[in-house]
Amino acid sequence: MSTVKVHLGTRSYPIHVLPGGLTRLGSLCRKQFESRRVALVSAPRIYRHHGQAAVRSLSRAGFSVTTLITRDGEQAKTQSCVSGLHDKLARAHFERQDPVVVLAGGTLGDAAGFAAATYLRGVPLAQVPTTLLAQVDSAIGGKTGINLPLGKNLVGSIWQPALVLCDPRVLSTLPAREFRSGLAEVVKYGCIAYPNLVSRLEKWVGSGRTLPETELTSWIEVGVRTKSKVVSMDEHEHDFRRVLNFGHTFGHALENATGYGRLLHGEAVALGLCVALVLSEGHCGLDPRFRERVVKLLRRCFPRLGFPNVTWSQLQAAMASDKKTRQGRQVWVLLTQPGQSVLDTPTTRQIRTSITVAQKLWAQSRG
Amino acid sequence: MSTVKVHLGTRSYPIHVLPGGLTRLGSLCRKQFESRRVALVSAPRIYRHHGQAAVRSLSRAGFSVTTLITRDGEQAKTQSCVSGLHDKLARAHFERQDPVVVLAGGTLGDAAGFAAATYLRGVPLAQVPTTLLAQVDSAIGGKTGINLPLGKNLVGSIWQPALVLCDPRVLSTLPAREFRSGLAEVVKYGCIAYPNLVSRLEKWVGSGRTLPETELTSWIEVGVRTKSKVVSMDEHEHDFRRVLNFGHTFGHALENATGYGRLLHGEAVALGLCVALVLSEGHCGLDPRFRERVVKLLRRCFPRLGFPNVTWSQLQAAMASDKKTRQGRQVWVLLTQPGQSVLDTPTTRQIRTSITVAQKLWAQSRG
Repeated sequence: MSTVKVHLGTRSYPIHVLPGGLTRLGSLCRKQFESRRVALVSAPRIYRHHGQAAVRSLSRAGFSVTTLITRDGEQAKTQSCVSGLHDKLARAHFERQDPVVVLAGGTLGDAAGFAAATYLRGVPLAQVPTTLLAQVDSAIGGKTGINLPLGKNLVGSIWQPALVLCDPRVLSTLPAREFRSGLAEVVKYGCIAYPNLVSRLEKWVGSGRTLPETELTSWIEVGVRTKSKVVSMDEHEHDFRRVLNFGHTFGHALENATGYGRLLHGEAVALGLCVALVLSEGHCGLDPRFRERVVKLLRRCFPRLGFPNVTWSQLQAAMASDKKTRQGRQVWVLLTQPGQSVLDTPTTRQIRTSITVAQKLWAQSRG
Repeated sequence: MSTVKVHLGTRSYPIHVLPGGLTRLGSLCRKQFESRRVALVSAPRIYRHHGQAAVRSLSRAGFSVTTLITRDGEQAKTQSCVSGLHDKLARAHFERQDPVVVLAGGTLGDAAGFAAATYLRGVPLAQVPTTLLAQVDSAIGGKTGINLPLGKNLVGSIWQPALVLCDPRVLSTLPAREFRSGLAEVVKYGCIAYPNLVSRLEKWVGSGRTLPETELTSWIEVGVRTKSKVVSMDEHEHDFRRVLNFGHTFGHALENATGYGRLLHGEAVALGLCVALVLSEGHCGLDPRFRERVVKLLRRCFPRLGFPNVTWSQLQAAMASDKKTRQGRQVWVLLTQPGQSVLDTPTTRQIRTSITVAQKLWAQSRG
């Protein structure tokens, strides 16, 4: 088992990356929580595959388990989902020290995390992310939240879990499209921190060979380590944490403009990475060969994905409601070289041109 | 101007107690916030009386003011109120650094504070409490939240304001019933920390004489000082902060059992103080003379208030959903002597008997 620690003083917590770790969920929770009961929040599909193992492990460790099954996907990231969880926790008389354990992907993880952050002004939380995307990104760092019709993640809290358990074996039941979606975030870590990861991904993605568990586990470890390091240094997203937003400015706008749920988050991020790489090449001197390699790699991750039909004015409206603005201008993370990022506020014109170029590159690199 | 500081490391903040201070709201905010705009959240009645002064002061200090008027009272403490504020903030493109300034009583202060705590995962907050209750209690300490049908304050966050401004002159437009409601919390501070305050209240309450501004200001200062000290020592309500809960265990249950809004919070707390004093006398050796004095004082604060008609089983159900439980048993704050409190978990029988005794005492001391 590899364990990474997020350093946040008294709120520090471990992230365990462990193939088959789900069977040890109970004992890992027992180390963190004194309570005799837990609420296990999950979604129907994932619970069908892995719920029993989780409940068994928690029960063996002496927890009485109240199971709360609710929808995942973008439907989870709504106030009605969060309020539903609040009601269920209240009806079951959950108390302040009783933890919420979330066995789910990123969307329900965000919503259930927000419910835990706000029920009784905050109850303990354990995240057991069940998608690649959640394992390398959303389950770490304490960002919880939901969407508003006007924009993504406009409502939420920073609420750190007491424990995160990433079991790569859980990903074996993940639909292929969901798995690929998570690869976008892995590619992102390659861009902003570990260019070497890009080479390793190039070796496996689209190669037709079966991905060994050890290789997948190490990708997750790199993601977990990078994210943990950034969060430990900057919990509340001052400038430093923004590096994680590479590819997300345009990605979020695309998700918003196309209506949440049409594109998976990772698909939107993949296209966002492409735009950010083009901007980086044009304005920060990023080597075009690196841009080319990464776009090619992303193309292999998402062979059937195209830029959706969205007008410039739709995108602009969506970008205007982005949280990462400074007096109205958007803050982008760009690369000066592989592994080296800067914050920049490109002009509207530069953004628009780069989107056009990125669209062309994406279409060309299909052939 | 007297300024008290809440000590919470980098999140420390000042509480200003200042007659006529509303005219200085803008300059006080300017010291705390770099933003060029603020959202001023208020309720119709209070905005009619004091809104213009607040807006003028903020504008003079260079803020562009977006006014958000919404209902106060227990209707404010709902998810729909909070979601309404979220939507309005998003529609006005409020950004992370833009503060929410709340010119309102405790209920809207709690709800708008929760909206600020959760919009964009938290934006800066200034509280300008407009009731006595909010000035001495709810606006200080960072507790924000709303009610669920199953119980009071079941959903919320700890989110500290960057600034609190208590202007005693604002209270001149407060309905008499609301003002008296706030006195219950002042009496509470007398019980748990400043027995001398009880004597001072005895001198003025129900005396028929006009209360001087300096006297009222000093009551508010005592409340602010006590609450700030407790919050500085125990932000997250481990045992120490619970001292503030004196009178609230039964008070909250009464509010819940009678349906929120029928009793004002302070009225419920007054009856709760009466029950807690009886329990303290019976089980912690509190001098009956102090119990008698305080019940008499409360009776003078609330001459027309009676114990509402609520069955024991309704009360029990309401108490069961209280947050302050430990493995199902309620934690009460009781007094061993004036100014000295302990945590105790009395039995159901002891609680029931004390309620009966308190009811009798309350009825008797009417004559």
